Amino acid sequence: MLLCDIGNSFAKFYDGTSFQRVPINEIDRYKDSKVCYINVNERIADKLRSFHKWIDLGEFIEFSTPYQGMGIDRQILCLVVEDGVVVDAGSAITVDVMQNGRHEGGFIMPGIRFLLEDFGVISPRLQIQKLQPVDIHKLPLSTQDALSYGIIKPIVLAIGEFAKPLFITGGDGEILARYFPGSHYDELMIFKGMMKIVKRNDLC
Amino acid sequence: MLLCDIGNSFAKFYDGTSFQRVPINEIDRYKDSKVCYINVNERIADKLRSFHKWIDLGEFIEFSTPYQGMGIDRQILCLVVEDGVVVDAGSAITVDVMQNGRHEGGFIMPGIRFLLEDFGVISPRLQIQKLQPVDIHKLPLSTQDALSYGIIKPIVLAIGEFAKPLFITGGDGEILARYFPGSHYDELMIFKGMMKIVKRNDLC
Repeated sequence: MLLCDIGNSFAKFYDGTSFQRVPINEIDRYKDSKVCYINVNERIADKLRSFHKWIDLGEFIEFSTPYQGMGIDRQILCLVVEDGVVVDAGSAITVDVMQNGRHEGGFIMPGIRFLLEDFGVISPRLQIQKLQPVDIHKLPLSTQDALSYGIIKPIVLAIGEFAKPLFITGGDGEILARYFPGSHYDELMIFKGMMKIVKRNDLC
Repeated sequence: MLLCDIGNSFAKFYDGTSFQRVPINEIDRYKDSKVCYINVNERIADKLRSFHKWIDLGEFIEFSTPYQGMGIDRQILCLVVEDGVVVDAGSAITVDVMQNGRHEGGFIMPGIRFLLEDFGVISPRLQIQKLQPVDIHKLPLSTQDALSYGIIKPIVLAIGEFAKPLFITGGDGEILARYFPGSHYDELMIFKGMMKIVKRNDLC
């Protein structure tokens, strides 16, 4: 059985040992495999329902929260963490706080790639290709450092407010984890949550 | 005499009592007035030099800092503050720390308008028209609050790190100032700095 996490541009497949990113328009080649999936991409929801061997784990999630409008990917990540802060650093950076298995709330920031692009649009003088490693405990003394600091420091402070173990996933998760000694980075976190649902419901 | 602060889209004029925003392509109608100006818009630098009654204050700034690449508008704002944090919340949000008249460094974040737009590009589910007032001391329990919190909280934390009086200017300055009780908001701060240069150099 395959697990599949579908976003807006890519589907991520995991077979229990290896992980693969597949462009959305190529998922048809998996249509005859047995796949348990979650999907946040409404444009392909109908198509996925026509794949008869595919099971939508979204229908099996049992996650109770007072939060309104929480994406299923965030819910599933939170299933993995009993007590801690859950960060998914992708196009957007979502942050959720779990306490004794209860969801306490969360927030959403634009992802690092978007912040980098913003600078170039604001002014050619603020163009920056990628985040530079900066010492966030020292005030920058150059525009180059000022831009990287201005992206990473606010994010780090907003996440660091909570005195809890930190669990990080997502494409930019590794970059973020560098600023949090002792944090747990796991690019497969979503699949651990999905597997929990699969097992709990005897879907494999 | 008029003071004029020229950005990428607008020129802001100040005559000592009233303040006016003029689209860049309309500044020709001021060309025969006596104007002391600063300009960060390279596209019109040549044209401004042809206005014979216009004086470029950029040539008179005496601001010493180890910071490399600091825009003249930021330098002038810092001239007004002996001790404190100087925030200019516009397209970009610049933050500079002054201590005993010395510039200690600073950083730059994308402005609120860009962060709002980012969300809409990331996903239609994250579309948000404007910043909602949120309690930044409470974890959000809805996507609407999560987005506004995710914009304002990181900015507030990054600025609030410095235990110093806070001086705020710029188009989004008033919004920001609400999150900092005791801060000083002054939309004319840049003109106060420009006037200092005018007086120091007997330019009027």
